[in-house]
Amino acid sequence: MIKAGIIGATGYAGAELAKLLKAHPQVDLLWLGSRSYKGQPYSSVYMNMRKIADEDCRSEDMNELAKEADVIFTATPQGFCASNINKEILESAKVIDLSADFRFKDVNVYEKWYGRTHEAPEYLEEAVYGLCEINRDKIKNARLIANPGCYTTCSILSLYPLVKDGLIDPATIIIDAKSGTSGAGRSAKTDNLFCEVNENIKAYSPVVHRHTPEIEEQLSYAAGCAVMLNFTPHLVPMNRGILVTAYASLVSGVTDADIEACYRKYYEDEYFIRLLAPGQCAQTRWVEGSNYTDIGFITDPRTGRIIVMSALDNLVKGAAGSAVQNMNILFGLPETCGLETFPAFP
Amino acid sequence: MIKAGIIGATGYAGAELAKLLKAHPQVDLLWLGSRSYKGQPYSSVYMNMRKIADEDCRSEDMNELAKEADVIFTATPQGFCASNINKEILESAKVIDLSADFRFKDVNVYEKWYGRTHEAPEYLEEAVYGLCEINRDKIKNARLIANPGCYTTCSILSLYPLVKDGLIDPATIIIDAKSGTSGAGRSAKTDNLFCEVNENIKAYSPVVHRHTPEIEEQLSYAAGCAVMLNFTPHLVPMNRGILVTAYASLVSGVTDADIEACYRKYYEDEYFIRLLAPGQCAQTRWVEGSNYTDIGFITDPRTGRIIVMSALDNLVKGAAGSAVQNMNILFGLPETCGLETFPAFP
Amino acid sequence: MIKAGIIGATGYAGAELAKLLKAHPQVDLLWLGSRSYKGQPYSSVYMNMRKIADEDCRSEDMNELAKEADVIFTATPQGFCASNINKEILESAKVIDLSADFRFKDVNVYEKWYGRTHEAPEYLEEAVYGLCEINRDKIKNARLIANPGCYTTCSILSLYPLVKDGLIDPATIIIDAKSGTSGAGRSAKTDNLFCEVNENIKAYSPVVHRHTPEIEEQLSYAAGCAVMLNFTPHLVPMNRGILVTAYASLVSGVTDADIEACYRKYYEDEYFIRLLAPGQCAQTRWVEGSNYTDIGFITDPRTGRIIVMSALDNLVKGAAGSAVQNMNILFGLPETCGLETFPAFP
Amino acid sequence: MIKAGIIGATGYAGAELAKLLKAHPQVDLLWLGSRSYKGQPYSSVYMNMRKIADEDCRSEDMNELAKEADVIFTATPQGFCASNINKEILESAKVIDLSADFRFKDVNVYEKWYGRTHEAPEYLEEAVYGLCEINRDKIKNARLIANPGCYTTCSILSLYPLVKDGLIDPATIIIDAKSGTSGAGRSAKTDNLFCEVNENIKAYSPVVHRHTPEIEEQLSYAAGCAVMLNFTPHLVPMNRGILVTAYASLVSGVTDADIEACYRKYYEDEYFIRLLAPGQCAQTRWVEGSNYTDIGFITDPRTGRIIVMSALDNLVKGAAGSAVQNMNILFGLPETCGLETFPAFP
Repeated sequence: MIKAGIIGATGYAGAELAKLLKAHPQVDLLWLGSRSYKGQPYSSVYMNMRKIADEDCRSEDMNELAKEADVIFTATPQGFCASNINKEILESAKVIDLSADFRFKDVNVYEKWYGRTHEAPEYLEEAVYGLCEINRDKIKNARLIANPGCYTTCSILSLYPLVKDGLIDPATIIIDAKSGTSGAGRSAKTDNLFCEVNENIKAYSPVVHRHTPEIEEQLSYAAGCAVMLNFTPHLVPMNRGILVTAYASLVSGVTDADIEACYRKYYEDEYFIRLLAPGQCAQTRWVEGSNYTDIGFITDPRTGRIIVMSALDNLVKGAAGSAVQNMNILFGLPETCGLETFPAFP
Repeated sequence: MIKAGIIGATGYAGAELAKLLKAHPQVDLLWLGSRSYKGQPYSSVYMNMRKIADEDCRSEDMNELAKEADVIFTATPQGFCASNINKEILESAKVIDLSADFRFKDVNVYEKWYGRTHEAPEYLEEAVYGLCEINRDKIKNARLIANPGCYTTCSILSLYPLVKDGLIDPATIIIDAKSGTSGAGRSAKTDNLFCEVNENIKAYSPVVHRHTPEIEEQLSYAAGCAVMLNFTPHLVPMNRGILVTAYASLVSGVTDADIEACYRKYYEDEYFIRLLAPGQCAQTRWVEGSNYTDIGFITDPRTGRIIVMSALDNLVKGAAGSAVQNMNILFGLPETCGLETFPAFP
Repeated sequence: MIKAGIIGATGYAGAELAKLLKAHPQVDLLWLGSRSYKGQPYSSVYMNMRKIADEDCRSEDMNELAKEADVIFTATPQGFCASNINKEILESAKVIDLSADFRFKDVNVYEKWYGRTHEAPEYLEEAVYGLCEINRDKIKNARLIANPGCYTTCSILSLYPLVKDGLIDPATIIIDAKSGTSGAGRSAKTDNLFCEVNENIKAYSPVVHRHTPEIEEQLSYAAGCAVMLNFTPHLVPMNRGILVTAYASLVSGVTDADIEACYRKYYEDEYFIRLLAPGQCAQTRWVEGSNYTDIGFITDPRTGRIIVMSALDNLVKGAAGSAVQNMNILFGLPETCGLETFPAFP
Repeated sequence: MIKAGIIGATGYAGAELAKLLKAHPQVDLLWLGSRSYKGQPYSSVYMNMRKIADEDCRSEDMNELAKEADVIFTATPQGFCASNINKEILESAKVIDLSADFRFKDVNVYEKWYGRTHEAPEYLEEAVYGLCEINRDKIKNARLIANPGCYTTCSILSLYPLVKDGLIDPATIIIDAKSGTSGAGRSAKTDNLFCEVNENIKAYSPVVHRHTPEIEEQLSYAAGCAVMLNFTPHLVPMNRGILVTAYASLVSGVTDADIEACYRKYYEDEYFIRLLAPGQCAQTRWVEGSNYTDIGFITDPRTGRIIVMSALDNLVKGAAGSAVQNMNILFGLPETCGLETFPAFP
């Protein structure tokens, strides 16, 4: 059994992780860390976990946790992991960080987009960007995994094959994304009150959203050149789900058959990716509660563009599920272990 | 492996059943019957089931299915099961009917409240009312299970111990229930359109709702005398969940401690019932996607009444989960087999 | 033109009031007071009011406001109005208080249920309970109006005729109420976040909710004896609307015709009350955005009970609309002035 | 008083129109036509209209209606108006058609995108495209108004000034639009059931949606050359509202100040357009229930693109409000007459 601990177990992503790890057949979840609820029964915070996780919440002390655990998940605000990680921790436990702290190779990108000083730039080089479908081999031997962002996972999986194989012009990429409200976290802000979110849709942080450089960096590796794009997230009145609608100009001569073949080449054997028939539109309801990403596309012969539409559950494949998938790879388990839950509908 | 088939697999309850049975470790689900979608891939109707149930929908022929299956689930409109069941079917397969056809012992009650002639009253006597927590022993050897209604399950579990042990006056019972919209089914009706249900709450069928006599019959057995009550269902703008708020006058002298002890006596060892601390209010979000029923209560010393508040997922414990629990009992499996999914939140 | 000011203009009830008064043909709204947003443009807080109320928010200084205004609305937390009101204010302006400060005649009831000391009990006697349909005559000459609570308005209007004319047994009244989330106010609390409220229904504060004694006091006046009842509010995932489902035992011999006649006697000429046909269920969607209260009922010959179902918009008839209706009466305007907006659907 | 009639008064757009016209100070609404509900009280279909529109629904007979009315609104499916219009009707009443029948000058465009034969192409030439802010002068003397589509109004108003003044490259326009569910109409379809729409977001009809050529035609007039673009609508789990997120490459050298000046030039005096501060994101909640369109933008110096974000209420400015605005122009009334309702929030 893998001994696992979570720091930040009472946020929405942390809670999803707690749920997945409690149900994981190879994991002993021994630490539910929470700054706000330390000392209180976990199931008094998340009452769905009554009879399942009635133990008290523990502290956010990573050093202490590292002594007990084989793997530490940090589902914490930006900066926490970078401020707390150290040599001793990394020598005794694998670390899977769900924040953005170790997602960039260039510390300047992080510091510019996140507006904060990085406390542990010395680990940026060794950290592995944990997008399993793409970096599986590098993940295997890593000590520190930078678990990708929710929007990022959906965006990169949507476009990676097309960029990698040169089917689209990377200078024309526009990503219009829509997210359920759990992506905004559980802290008490007026903007996230029921009455403010319900019966509304809005874009937020257009042009400057922090997932932009993360998508760009990964697509740049695929393209072999610097990619710059527009990414516009929107807040949707629903709990879960991310939908990406991505636009790009096709390279001249590329056919629907080429595109299908390209997606199949990269994803046909991927358990957690479901390719839709050409013209079919992905919908968040079909992936809710699961680790799947559904990917579909359509092309427009009039404008020469492709529209890629993809959906995933922001708390599962976009956060906790992906983190568990990374753990499975790190510990040599089947990648699907503990992640086979079918999507729930309605 | 138990060979199982579903008639009515493309309604919401049938789809939940399909999901549970596909994931059940002891079941081989070999028949997804659907009148409307026969011959079409199941996953084209429920796209969440892509890669999981891509086989074509089959017919609604119970006779044919009985030749292949050990157990048949009928998640069909009122009257279907009664019209189709026969001696041969019952001799070759267990039948778990999710409709109301076999829930009453007295055919007159059925015919009066449902406004239709019963096509197979000869099986009413042997049918067992499949509320596992109460009728477990009778279920074991049954051939025909009448799976309880969603409102009914929540209502009976809430009040059974109090009625059984005489802590409340059964003549004073009022049940005010609230349900998510999946309870209304998947047929295309104007009243169930998004814009009609969203941003609204209403009672429907007060006084005459068909679950009334079902609750009354079961509570009458517990009380040892005829119970008559008011049951008022409401439609809530959410997908899943039933909340029951039940009112009754306490018998003189009954204390909170008596009530707690009574609930514990009947439910403490029940895996799928979670008793809340006195004063705690059940909420549908804490049981969503699971087979749990949460039950709490509060008493009012001013009026001498008890208010019992209970929640369950109408598609799981209120339909498909309960049906699987019945199947587990019928086939000698642990009752929780295939039903351990934790409640999902948010 | 009536010069009007609002203290607490940036809560949900205050904002509805601002909207109504800005559109009112006889009102000059000269003061939008807000503790949190003082000095900021009102339309930067409520962007729906751009081009309509772009002026800066002012302070919460009632004394200052009283010098400029003919009428002051306090849409403030419990205790504010009682702490700030004084002789000078009451001599220069009418005060319509939307809090509970002046709703009870007996200061002990207030202090017990609200858990706070009343700062101005000397005004309790002269304050008039502003439920227009019932207290119209007393309101006309009042200086201080206690505007009723949202649940209270719906509950009292539902039961007042039946209690007044002795058609029901007041000892058997049970009120099961359901409210949209705007009733919980705009302050940033985890419990009111979108993901916590959405896809959920729960009771809250059963037995001890503060609107209980308010309903009891007014129904006691109607009954001519002390009425004690159960009131259970529920939180519904929608923005607006209150639905009351009230239960009571009919006095022996009372017929549906008696009940209809009774409701007609009191309400037939009331502009803002719409009586439904017997058996029809009130729905919140049909009153949204309007000052109407819809009232329907059904009786159960089996149990001898009546079920009254009523709906109103908690921010309009349940708060701001009622306050404007009170103002209209105070200033001799037609009661409907500025309140004729039709309900919006969908 | 203008005598007005509606054909198709029981769809969502027709109902909004009924509500606006009933409240309009210069209109006598004498005909509520409905195919499905003919002979039934209008307020039995839309119970929000009790006491407001209790008259029976009438037929869909345009000839009959033309004898009584000064203006006829057709809120009917594609093809109805073209099939029924004739010389006599146009000589006796103004016609405002809310369908697409007369929106295109080129009958081939209509027939290709709508897949049906046009029954009255002889009126295409004289019909005026009723986007008031742009075609006000032509509307004044028209007999037949083609009221624009909901997505179209929002899209054209967003981009018209930029295209007209050559600030963007029209070949790069991408419109990603999001709509509330009332846009899908009131007919009973499984896809529009509450449980199918709730907790979901999806694109639908990408590349081929019928509003595409309508947007293109109007923007082509502005550009002075043929514009071809991508338009992708999405279905959002909310009742009302359209949000347009439009992308385009800026012409070299264009500054934020140029863009602001351009929008001001065209819209500063428009009552129903509210320009947001640069960088501000439009939100549907701020326009709900009103005839406003909110327009904001942000530019990205990195990619050289502008992102325009606009919001309107699909049933008001996107349909019924716009139709009333057209009527006001046709009959020489102030354009805002009957349309001053403030946006409702929450």
